[in-house]
Amino acid sequence: MLSFRPVVLVTGVLVCALGVMMLIPMCVDLLSTDEVHRADWAAFAIGAIICVFAGGGGAAASWGPINQISRREGFLLTAASWLLLVVFAAIPLSLGGLELSYLDAFFEAMSGLTTTGSTVVTGLDDAPPGALLWRSMLQWFGGVGIVIMAFAVLPALKVGGMQIFKSEAWDTSEKFIANAAQYSIALSMIYVFFTVLCFLSLWAFGMPAWDALNHSMTTVATGGFSTRDASLSAFLTVGRAPLDLIVTFFMIIGSLPFGIFLAALLRGAWRRLFSDSQIQFFLSVVAILTILMMFRVLTLFEDMDVFSAFRLAIFNVVSIITGTGYATTDYNAWGPFAVGFFFCIMFIGGCAGSTSCGMKVFRFQVALAALNVYARRLAHPNGVFVARYNGRPLTDDVFVSVLSFFFVYFATFATMAVLLSGLGLDTLTALSAAGSAIANVGPGLGDIVGPAGNFSSLPDLAKLILAAGMLLGRLELFTILVILSPAFWRG
Amino acid sequence: MLSFRPVVLVTGVLVCALGVMMLIPMCVDLLSTDEVHRADWAAFAIGAIICVFAGGGGAAASWGPINQISRREGFLLTAASWLLLVVFAAIPLSLGGLELSYLDAFFEAMSGLTTTGSTVVTGLDDAPPGALLWRSMLQWFGGVGIVIMAFAVLPALKVGGMQIFKSEAWDTSEKFIANAAQYSIALSMIYVFFTVLCFLSLWAFGMPAWDALNHSMTTVATGGFSTRDASLSAFLTVGRAPLDLIVTFFMIIGSLPFGIFLAALLRGAWRRLFSDSQIQFFLSVVAILTILMMFRVLTLFEDMDVFSAFRLAIFNVVSIITGTGYATTDYNAWGPFAVGFFFCIMFIGGCAGSTSCGMKVFRFQVALAALNVYARRLAHPNGVFVARYNGRPLTDDVFVSVLSFFFVYFATFATMAVLLSGLGLDTLTALSAAGSAIANVGPGLGDIVGPAGNFSSLPDLAKLILAAGMLLGRLELFTILVILSPAFWRG
Repeated sequence: MLSFRPVVLVTGVLVCALGVMMLIPMCVDLLSTDEVHRADWAAFAIGAIICVFAGGGGAAASWGPINQISRREGFLLTAASWLLLVVFAAIPLSLGGLELSYLDAFFEAMSGLTTTGSTVVTGLDDAPPGALLWRSMLQWFGGVGIVIMAFAVLPALKVGGMQIFKSEAWDTSEKFIANAAQYSIALSMIYVFFTVLCFLSLWAFGMPAWDALNHSMTTVATGGFSTRDASLSAFLTVGRAPLDLIVTFFMIIGSLPFGIFLAALLRGAWRRLFSDSQIQFFLSVVAILTILMMFRVLTLFEDMDVFSAFRLAIFNVVSIITGTGYATTDYNAWGPFAVGFFFCIMFIGGCAGSTSCGMKVFRFQVALAALNVYARRLAHPNGVFVARYNGRPLTDDVFVSVLSFFFVYFATFATMAVLLSGLGLDTLTALSAAGSAIANVGPGLGDIVGPAGNFSSLPDLAKLILAAGMLLGRLELFTILVILSPAFWRG
Repeated sequence: MLSFRPVVLVTGVLVCALGVMMLIPMCVDLLSTDEVHRADWAAFAIGAIICVFAGGGGAAASWGPINQISRREGFLLTAASWLLLVVFAAIPLSLGGLELSYLDAFFEAMSGLTTTGSTVVTGLDDAPPGALLWRSMLQWFGGVGIVIMAFAVLPALKVGGMQIFKSEAWDTSEKFIANAAQYSIALSMIYVFFTVLCFLSLWAFGMPAWDALNHSMTTVATGGFSTRDASLSAFLTVGRAPLDLIVTFFMIIGSLPFGIFLAALLRGAWRRLFSDSQIQFFLSVVAILTILMMFRVLTLFEDMDVFSAFRLAIFNVVSIITGTGYATTDYNAWGPFAVGFFFCIMFIGGCAGSTSCGMKVFRFQVALAALNVYARRLAHPNGVFVARYNGRPLTDDVFVSVLSFFFVYFATFATMAVLLSGLGLDTLTALSAAGSAIANVGPGLGDIVGPAGNFSSLPDLAKLILAAGMLLGRLELFTILVILSPAFWRG
């Protein structure tokens, strides 16, 4: 039987916690020296009150011990908690000095919590500090949320082939931490550690502390929100330290499976950092794409030195492939090859179990393995062929899960693009906005949604479609789609 | 052991037969009243001689009985024969009055034999009749070739899920014609019948006999080559009979599974024409898309009556979804929704076992069935769920085949689009040319490859990439890709 009580209880607790977190940007606003910015504290205070009452009320009404959560309750809980956190997180943004409609605030909160990084806010340079911090915090929470989910929830739900990571997290034979809560705390500690390290590096190399704080949160979360309208390029003046390389390093850290960091720390399994098939594949892909883009950049800007070309190439490749979406330059101007290149690689994503977005590289590895087995079967129908991933055999069940994921991913992308075209967006904008939303990248292509543009001028319905795409992409599609399928609701 | 002898023998015979066929356009040129056109006979004479000698020589050198063809030899034979037929079919086009380079002629012949319909020929209105007929004949041969292959070869090779049609063709329990040769002849007779019917209809309703002949061949083949630069719109002057509706009808006929026509004729199983799951699905999709586009057309042209809107909508929907690619109007001007809409539907295709192109509707049906089973398994992990297609159970093996097909289709499409961008094509042109080639549609979007454009101005390498894409798409990808995989060549 499907029981809603645990769903309401957990979601209520999470919303309540979100309300408490709103006190941080509230305090930041109160400490502001600018009178207009100071007045923004009220938005967060009201938001906090609403969250604590609504969340706390829901939790209190459904209070009681939770013995077990079924698969179906797990899906409902995951979808409901992410959606409701966005709904409530949007409240202070809509009430405050950013002067957003609730729909715009919802879009911004969704873009934040899903670590997408598309923004409807114009004038970030003059925005109240509380609102800026809240945007960064949302991405940061979203990042750690997805890391914990990819470790503890998605493998159990068998979403899109994630079951191949199951035993890693829960196998009794290697249960080096006894229960899920401890796991989550340990993962969060690693996440905090990298964020602090990123903050210190940025600060030490000359970024103002406030900007370093915000950017460290949105970098490790591979989110991409910035405190400036010019994004990261505002800090890349000539003569400054190559802050973009620091950011690149931490975007890559954010795209690696945090579970492997945990294993390394707790069991001394440092070697797995280098022997893990997913990490090897991801870093190889990044290296190849960087070299490719470096050549393109060198042919484009003839007087550029090799190191500068490398910086430009690796930063943009990593920013897009990990779904971060920071901009230092408008690569729209790099010609059609670069445009097509960046459009394609944004779907790739990082490793499963990281904060990164997109389809995730392990799915490409599984798909390639499936194709290899399939090609062998076609050529030698009587042979028996078994593929392996990190030493474990891959079954047809996993192949169907992963290949279905690709199919639904493209179908969702195409549907979104056609719907956006129907709302009057031109083809390039519709395609890239749809792709950028479902892959949680942030910027698309063209004047409106490109790195130099802003999503605020899009029609309301387009913003809703994109917000839905972000949620679908972040929760690996099936977590949401299963709930929408009739099969789910049949006894 | 892999034996090349049967491959060379069959390919040689086919090339030899192609040479004999070149005598038809040769005679047409000789009968021409125009002196310049008459001189074009020599191109076909030379082509015929080369084909008969090269093909006949190959066949003679490898003559002998063929007892059995292994799976691997089947793949080689299929790929080699299609590629070599294109190589030889291009010869008269490159020698004749069209003044094409051999590469352009190769592109044109590939576009013909794969029933794509993209053209590099400018000035069709003044082209020699032999060359025009040869283009139409290539599409017509390509059409019947793919029908026979989809019935007799692809299911046995298990390409991209085609194994689900296997028993239909070869099951001993319903072997209503004993062997493959008879099958092929029977299918060809049906094909000829529909072509004649199409010719008579077009002729009776006012299209000149010569144009009716050519268009009937390229319509039933869902190819899309025309005798006019203005394509079919040259014959749609006001007051004329609605020739486009006749063409629409026969494009739909060409997109239905010919095996079912055969069963209907031979066993009186007429009811299957209406109960077949694939036909039902295809016609429903066409109906829904037509209604959708009708509304778009009606909002676009406010003074248009409902019947004209229906004509315009159904013609363009059918022309694109079946991969024919005739143009009556430039739908590029219908706004971004129509552009996105036509871009997406060109991938859908018609039924397996027809002359139509694209991914084929049965694959969407199988993918939807796979997703349905997958969603049920996610929600109810202990249940047992079986999907069926036309009453037969679908196994995980079929799911993997079909979903792999989608994956490779998109990967090939994306790779082609990026390569084309690298050659300097703008994003829209690169995307639509790549899609149009792999889906064997013909026209793309934009000024160069759009319905109003011409492929001749593309760089040579782009033409080669597109030609490769056409062959991949026509042979359902895996027929070619398997041969390129290392697994194929390992003992």
